[in-house]
Amino acid sequence: MLFSKIAMEDYITSFLIEDTGFTGDITSSFLQGKRIKAHLIAGESFTLAGTPFFNKVFELLDNEFQIKWHLTEGQTVYEGDILCSMEGKETALLSGERTALNLLQHLSGIATNTRRYTKVLEGTRIKLLDTRKTTPGLRYFEKYATRIGGAWNHRMGLYDAVMIKDNHIKAYGSITDAVNTVKQNVPITVKIEVEVENWPQLHEVLNVKDKVDIIMLDNWEISEIDRAIEFIRNKINHAKIEVSGGITLEKLAELKTKDIDFVSTSKLITGAKWVDISMEVE
Amino acid sequence: MLFSKIAMEDYITSFLIEDTGFTGDITSSFLQGKRIKAHLIAGESFTLAGTPFFNKVFELLDNEFQIKWHLTEGQTVYEGDILCSMEGKETALLSGERTALNLLQHLSGIATNTRRYTKVLEGTRIKLLDTRKTTPGLRYFEKYATRIGGAWNHRMGLYDAVMIKDNHIKAYGSITDAVNTVKQNVPITVKIEVEVENWPQLHEVLNVKDKVDIIMLDNWEISEIDRAIEFIRNKINHAKIEVSGGITLEKLAELKTKDIDFVSTSKLITGAKWVDISMEVE
Amino acid sequence: MLFSKIAMEDYITSFLIEDTGFTGDITSSFLQGKRIKAHLIAGESFTLAGTPFFNKVFELLDNEFQIKWHLTEGQTVYEGDILCSMEGKETALLSGERTALNLLQHLSGIATNTRRYTKVLEGTRIKLLDTRKTTPGLRYFEKYATRIGGAWNHRMGLYDAVMIKDNHIKAYGSITDAVNTVKQNVPITVKIEVEVENWPQLHEVLNVKDKVDIIMLDNWEISEIDRAIEFIRNKINHAKIEVSGGITLEKLAELKTKDIDFVSTSKLITGAKWVDISMEVE
Amino acid sequence: MLFSKIAMEDYITSFLIEDTGFTGDITSSFLQGKRIKAHLIAGESFTLAGTPFFNKVFELLDNEFQIKWHLTEGQTVYEGDILCSMEGKETALLSGERTALNLLQHLSGIATNTRRYTKVLEGTRIKLLDTRKTTPGLRYFEKYATRIGGAWNHRMGLYDAVMIKDNHIKAYGSITDAVNTVKQNVPITVKIEVEVENWPQLHEVLNVKDKVDIIMLDNWEISEIDRAIEFIRNKINHAKIEVSGGITLEKLAELKTKDIDFVSTSKLITGAKWVDISMEVE
Amino acid sequence: MLFSKIAMEDYITSFLIEDTGFTGDITSSFLQGKRIKAHLIAGESFTLAGTPFFNKVFELLDNEFQIKWHLTEGQTVYEGDILCSMEGKETALLSGERTALNLLQHLSGIATNTRRYTKVLEGTRIKLLDTRKTTPGLRYFEKYATRIGGAWNHRMGLYDAVMIKDNHIKAYGSITDAVNTVKQNVPITVKIEVEVENWPQLHEVLNVKDKVDIIMLDNWEISEIDRAIEFIRNKINHAKIEVSGGITLEKLAELKTKDIDFVSTSKLITGAKWVDISMEVE
Amino acid sequence: MLFSKIAMEDYITSFLIEDTGFTGDITSSFLQGKRIKAHLIAGESFTLAGTPFFNKVFELLDNEFQIKWHLTEGQTVYEGDILCSMEGKETALLSGERTALNLLQHLSGIATNTRRYTKVLEGTRIKLLDTRKTTPGLRYFEKYATRIGGAWNHRMGLYDAVMIKDNHIKAYGSITDAVNTVKQNVPITVKIEVEVENWPQLHEVLNVKDKVDIIMLDNWEISEIDRAIEFIRNKINHAKIEVSGGITLEKLAELKTKDIDFVSTSKLITGAKWVDISMEVE
Repeated sequence: MLFSKIAMEDYITSFLIEDTGFTGDITSSFLQGKRIKAHLIAGESFTLAGTPFFNKVFELLDNEFQIKWHLTEGQTVYEGDILCSMEGKETALLSGERTALNLLQHLSGIATNTRRYTKVLEGTRIKLLDTRKTTPGLRYFEKYATRIGGAWNHRMGLYDAVMIKDNHIKAYGSITDAVNTVKQNVPITVKIEVEVENWPQLHEVLNVKDKVDIIMLDNWEISEIDRAIEFIRNKINHAKIEVSGGITLEKLAELKTKDIDFVSTSKLITGAKWVDISMEVE
Repeated sequence: MLFSKIAMEDYITSFLIEDTGFTGDITSSFLQGKRIKAHLIAGESFTLAGTPFFNKVFELLDNEFQIKWHLTEGQTVYEGDILCSMEGKETALLSGERTALNLLQHLSGIATNTRRYTKVLEGTRIKLLDTRKTTPGLRYFEKYATRIGGAWNHRMGLYDAVMIKDNHIKAYGSITDAVNTVKQNVPITVKIEVEVENWPQLHEVLNVKDKVDIIMLDNWEISEIDRAIEFIRNKINHAKIEVSGGITLEKLAELKTKDIDFVSTSKLITGAKWVDISMEVE
Repeated sequence: MLFSKIAMEDYITSFLIEDTGFTGDITSSFLQGKRIKAHLIAGESFTLAGTPFFNKVFELLDNEFQIKWHLTEGQTVYEGDILCSMEGKETALLSGERTALNLLQHLSGIATNTRRYTKVLEGTRIKLLDTRKTTPGLRYFEKYATRIGGAWNHRMGLYDAVMIKDNHIKAYGSITDAVNTVKQNVPITVKIEVEVENWPQLHEVLNVKDKVDIIMLDNWEISEIDRAIEFIRNKINHAKIEVSGGITLEKLAELKTKDIDFVSTSKLITGAKWVDISMEVE
Repeated sequence: MLFSKIAMEDYITSFLIEDTGFTGDITSSFLQGKRIKAHLIAGESFTLAGTPFFNKVFELLDNEFQIKWHLTEGQTVYEGDILCSMEGKETALLSGERTALNLLQHLSGIATNTRRYTKVLEGTRIKLLDTRKTTPGLRYFEKYATRIGGAWNHRMGLYDAVMIKDNHIKAYGSITDAVNTVKQNVPITVKIEVEVENWPQLHEVLNVKDKVDIIMLDNWEISEIDRAIEFIRNKINHAKIEVSGGITLEKLAELKTKDIDFVSTSKLITGAKWVDISMEVE
Repeated sequence: MLFSKIAMEDYITSFLIEDTGFTGDITSSFLQGKRIKAHLIAGESFTLAGTPFFNKVFELLDNEFQIKWHLTEGQTVYEGDILCSMEGKETALLSGERTALNLLQHLSGIATNTRRYTKVLEGTRIKLLDTRKTTPGLRYFEKYATRIGGAWNHRMGLYDAVMIKDNHIKAYGSITDAVNTVKQNVPITVKIEVEVENWPQLHEVLNVKDKVDIIMLDNWEISEIDRAIEFIRNKINHAKIEVSGGITLEKLAELKTKDIDFVSTSKLITGAKWVDISMEVE
Repeated sequence: MLFSKIAMEDYITSFLIEDTGFTGDITSSFLQGKRIKAHLIAGESFTLAGTPFFNKVFELLDNEFQIKWHLTEGQTVYEGDILCSMEGKETALLSGERTALNLLQHLSGIATNTRRYTKVLEGTRIKLLDTRKTTPGLRYFEKYATRIGGAWNHRMGLYDAVMIKDNHIKAYGSITDAVNTVKQNVPITVKIEVEVENWPQLHEVLNVKDKVDIIMLDNWEISEIDRAIEFIRNKINHAKIEVSGGITLEKLAELKTKDIDFVSTSKLITGAKWVDISMEVE
C-alpha cells in the first residue's frame, strides 16, 4: 500500500478523536464491554475499497477485535452481500461503527466511480490517472481508492514531482525559464511535467525538451490531439504524453485509440458518491 | 462559526502538510516571491461556502495576503462570476491554490446540494438536519457547509448528544435499559434521542418518556407516520419528532405538511459533488 | 466513564513527560528493572477516586504491571486501609509513583469534598452539579471525580451547551437577543440555559421561554427563591431550575426542600484538598 | 520566569482546547466581535499570582487584546480591589474568561497559602521549598506560584536532581549502593539528595558523604533534629540540611531557630484553595 | 529551498525545546530583555551554509530580531571574517545562540566538505549526489547543505523514488520481479533505479530495461566501469548511469572523464566536521 | 540510560517519518512481509554505541522483530565482526535498515572518537565532559554516546544547570550581578558554573564564591593554569575546576597531571565521523 503505516494510524486516530472529543461516546460508554458479533451488508452493488482502514479503526479501539472478510479489496460486491463478520467488544463496535463505515463507504464510492472510467480503457496501454483534487486530509486514502478502482496515481503532492502549469509559466516568465530553473534545483530523481494549452506552448517545449519527462495536453480539442501527438513523438520522442481536461466517459472512449500514455481526471474522486453499507449487530 | 479557531487552524495546517510534505512545493519554491494578483472564476452555478477556510490557507502561507470577496458566503453564484480578487506572494498563491480550492469546491458542493433539499421545506417550521455520515477528518467543515446551505446541525459527534439506535438497544437489552443507564450517567445538559423503527419500540418509549428529548422515526412508511405523530403528540408531548431514512426530494415534499420538527439525511453530504471553480493569475 | 480513552491516555502520557522531561528519572534509571511489590496505604479517611488513571500510569510504563484493588472506586476508605497491592518493574514503580499518587490524592480529595455536599441532598430529587471552574488541563479528570462523589456534571466545556450569563447579556444587548441569536445557530441537540440575577431578567425570559431549557437563579436571596420558583413553574413550565451562587453546606440544607432541579457549585473542586495516601515498597 | 516560553504557550493553548473542543464557544461565537472593556475585582484578600498566564490566554485569542494591571505580581490584594482593566474583542473576552480566571484563582490561591508559611521563616536564612506533589499538568505553573509566595523551588522533576528515598534504598539495596550507582551515571552538574528517616540511615550516609549534596531529615521528631544537625555539621560539613514531613505552621515556628538550610512541604500546593476573583464587563 | 516552511519551523522549534525543556534557559531568563548587538566571527575558512535556519532560530524567539549578513549562503568565508551583525533581545540572543550556531557550524561543515568533492568534477557534466545516509532528524537540513556545497540531491526519502538494492533483490527473488512488481504499483511520476554489483545483474536489467531510469554501478572496479558503461549505452540507452561505492577524492578524479551521469557518496555528510564560528556580544 | 523512554520512542518515530513521509517505503511495500534473517558486519574497528536505539527502530516497525547482539554496548569491535543477528518481517527490515544504521554508525563514531580522548585521562580522577555543541535534534542520543565512550555528561540543556559565560557577564553587567541574580531565582538543586577567561574575572568570583559550584578556566595558557588552580584551591576551596577551550589530545596529555576535576570539549561530538557498518540479508 502506498501509505506509511505510522501516518495511516495517526490519521485514523485523529478521525476517532474528531468523533469522540474529550468526553467519548456518551451513548455506549456505560455498557459492560462484553463481546458481540456483527456483520456488514451491501445496500447496493459497488467495488469494495478501504478494508485495511476499516480494520484499523477497530484494532485501535480493541486490540482483540476480529474481522473476517468474505470479499476482498477491489472485488465487485452485489446488493445484499455479507461483506464481513466481526467480533469484538460492544463498546468498540458501537463507537467505531460510524468512523469505519464513513471510510469504507466513501472509498468504495471512489473505487466504484473509478472503475467506470478504467473499464473504458481496458485492452489499451493507456493508464488512467488521478490528480491532486482530493478531499483535504484524505489524499492518501483517496489515492489508494483510485488504485483499487484500476487507476494509477499521478504525483502524491507538491513535493514528489514537478508540474508546470499555466500559472507557473506566468510567474516564471516562460516555459523555458520555468523548466530550467526547476531542473537546476530539484533532486535528480524528480520527473518534470509541463502542461501545454496551445501550439505556441508546445513549440516552446522544444527549448527544454531533454528536461521534460511528461507533456500534458490540457483541454485540447480532440481534433487537434492527433497532430499534437505526432509533433511530440517526432520532436521530443522520449516524453510521455498525458491528456487532461474535461474528461468524460464519452471523451475517454474517443481517446482510447490514441498513441498516448496517460489520461488524467479529477472526476474519479470529485464525482464519486458514497455507497450504501450498513452494519447489523447479531 | 461552530468551529474553534485553534482547531480550524490546526486542520488547515495539516492539509498544507499533506500536500507539501517535508520537501515543499518543488515547482514554485524557486520563484523570487514577488507579489502577484489572481482571481477566482465560477465554472457553473452554485452556493458559495468555505470562504473563511479559503482565506485561512493563504493567511497561513503569507500573512500579508489579501483577498477581496465580491460575493458573500451562502450567496448564489453564476457561471462566469468573478468570486474574489487576490493579491500576495506568488509562492504562497501557487502553493496554496490546490488546497484552498479543494476546500472551496468540496464545501460549496455540499452547500449547493443542501440547498436543493432545504428549498423544499421553505415556509414550514421543519428543520432539515445533517448526520454523522461525514468525510473522516472534515466533520466540522462539512457541518459548517450544510448550515450555509440552510440546514441545521444534528449532534457534532458521539460526545455531545445521546442517540440510541437499533444496535444500542440490542447491546443494552432494551430501550428502557438503554435510556435509564445513559440518563443516569451523562451531563444534565445532554439531550437524549431514541431511534424507533416500529410500533413496539415506540410503545416502549413510554416507559422512559420523561427522559427522551427527541424521537426519531427511522424508515417508517409515509402512511404510518401520521399515526406515529399522533401517538407521540398525545403520549409524550414534550418530545421533538425527527423523521429519517431514505429521504429523497420527493419524500421530503410529502413530509413538509406533517407535524414534525426535524428531517435528517446524510445525503446532504454524501450525495454532493464538487463545484467547478478555477483560479487565474493576472 | 465520560472520558475518551484516546484523550485520557494522551493526558497521562503528558503528565509523565512533565515529570521526566528528556532525561528521564535519573534516580531510578540505573536499576536493573527487577519486579517488586508495593501497596498503597490510606493516611486518613476519604472517598476513593481515580483508580483507572492510577492504573494507566503504570500500564504506560510497564505493560505487565499488575494492580489489585482491595477497595473500589467511590468506596469510603479509612485511615490505615491497604488500598491496593501492586507488582511490576521497579523502574516503573519508582518513576510512576508520584504522578500516579498526585492524580489519586487530588481526585480522591475532590470526591471526598463532593460527598460532603451530596449527602445533604440525599433523599431529594435535586441533583448537585459541578461547574467549569476546574483546574486547567484537568477538566475531564475532575469532572470524573465529582461524579464519583455523587454529583452530576454540568456542561463539559464551552462547546456542548449554551449558558447565557450576565456578560453575554451585555454583549448581545438583551436576554432576548442572546437567546434568539444563539438558538438560530447551534445544533438542535444543544440545550440553552440562562442565568438570571433579578426579577427583570426573569421576566424577560418569557420572551424566549420556549427556547430556554434551564433557568439558573444566580445569587438569589433564599427568601426570593420560592417566589421565583412559583413564577417559573407557572409561566415557563417545561424549564429546569438551577440554583447557584455562594452555595455552602448550610445554604444547601435550606435548598433541599425547594421545588428545584439542580444546585451547582464550583466549591466541589475549588475547595477540595488532597487526601493522604502513601506507597510502600515491600 | 522558570518556564520556557514555548512550553508555556503550548500548555495554555491546550487549556483553551480543553474548554472549546472542536465546536468552540457556542454561546459567544455569534457575536460581531466588537471591542469591549472589562475589569477584574477581588472578592477577598490574597497574594496575586499568575498574571503572565492570564495575559497569555487573551493574547492567544486576540493579538490586540490589552490588559493594564493596577497591582503587580506578588502584591497583596484586598477585597474590592480592581486588579486590572481589559479591552479587546468581546468574543475573546467571553471565551477566555473562565480559562484565564481558573489559572489566576488557582495560582493566587497557592501564592497566598505559601505566604502564610514563608512569613513564619522571615528573618532567618532558611528557605521554604515546594515538592513534586503538584497537580498533574500544572507543575511549572504551580512551582511558579510558590516562588511568587516567597518559597524556593526544589527540583522541577525526576530529571534535574537526584533524590534517594526510602523506596529507592530498598530497590538499590542500601544508601551506599544507591548513591554510588547514581553518582557514576548522572551528569556532573546534578546534585544528589538523600532522605534519611533514622539514625542508622544517617550513619550510613558517611560512606558516601562526599557525593551527597543535601541530606533530608524526613519525619524526625523535633527533639532529635538538634542532634542530627550536630552530627551532620561535624561529619559531613559541606552538605545542606533539609527538614521535611508533616510541616505545619506550628512545626515551622519550632524549626525557625535551627541551623538548617531548607524546610520542604507539599502543603503549599496541596493545601491551597482558589481565591475569589470575578470579571465584570463594563 | 527544498524544505517546506511549515516543516522547517516545526523542526527548529523542536530544537529549541530540546535545549530549554520546560524550565527554559535558567541562566538568561532573569535578564530584563533589553536589546543588544552581537556578531559572528569565522574561526577558520569554510563554505557558509545554514543562514536561513540560523535566522529562523532568533525569529522564533524574538519577532523583531534583526540579522544582517555580510556574506551570502554558499560563499567562501575566511578566518576572521565577520559573518553577520545581529541585534535583538538579550534573552533571545543568549538562549538561541547555541542552537543557531550548532546548525550553522554543522551545515557549513557539510557544505565545506561537499565542495572539496564537487571541485573535482568541475567542468564536467557529471553531477555529484548525496545519499540517505544522513543524521536522523536532520535529513532535510543536511541535503540542503550538500546543495549549497555544489552537489545534487538524490531521492529525499524512501517515499519519492525507487531504489532496488541487493537486499531488495534477495527479498523479491530477482531484479526482474522487483522492478515489475514495483513499477506496477508506484505513481507514474516515480523514477526507478537499480543497483547492480556485477555483470549477471547488469545483464538481468535487460529484462526490464524500459522500466529502469537509473542504473547504479555499485562498487565496480574502475577497470570494469568502462565496459559497463559501453554495455548500458548500447543496450539500455535512455537510462542514466550512477557510480557509487568507496568514492574518494582520488577515485572521483579517475571517474571525471567517464561517460556517466552521477557519482554518489555518503561521505559528503558522514565525513564532515563542524566548522569554527563564534558569537561575540558587543 | 539518561533518556526518557517516552521521549526516545517519540524521537525514533519521527526519524522513521522523516524517511517514509506519507507514502511509505515505495521500494519494499509490495513485498509479502515474510520473515527473513540478516546480520550486521563491521567494516572497520570501533566502539559500539547505539544498540538500544537500533533495536527500537525495528521494534516500532514489527513488534515480533528479534535481534541478538554478539557484542555489547561499549565493546571494541574489529573489522569483519558480526555484530548481531536479526530476524523479522522483510518489510520492516528493509524499511528500517537505513534509519537504524544511521543511528548506529553516527553514535558509534562518537563513542569511538570519545574513547581516543578518555584513554589519555585513564588512571587519573579527571573526568572528561561533553558540551551543548550537539547536532540539533540528537542531543540526548549523542550525550548517551559520549558516556559509552567513557566521558561524563555536562549539563543536558539550558534548563538543568547554570553556566555564566562571557556574553552573560556582559548582559548582567558583572560576574557578581550575574551570579547573585541567578542564584536568587533558580531551584535550590541547581549548580552554578562560571566561565573565567582571565585573572580579573577569577578575582571577581571571590565576591560570590559561596554560590559558585564549578569554575571553568576557558582558554587559559597551560602555563597559567597551575597558578589559577592554586588560587582557586586556596580561596574558593569547595569549587570544582573545569578546564576547557581548544582541547586536543596533546593538550589533554599536559592536563592529566593537574589538580583539576573536569576537562570539557565539544570535539568528542563535532569531530567524530561515522563508522562503517553494513547489513547483509541472508
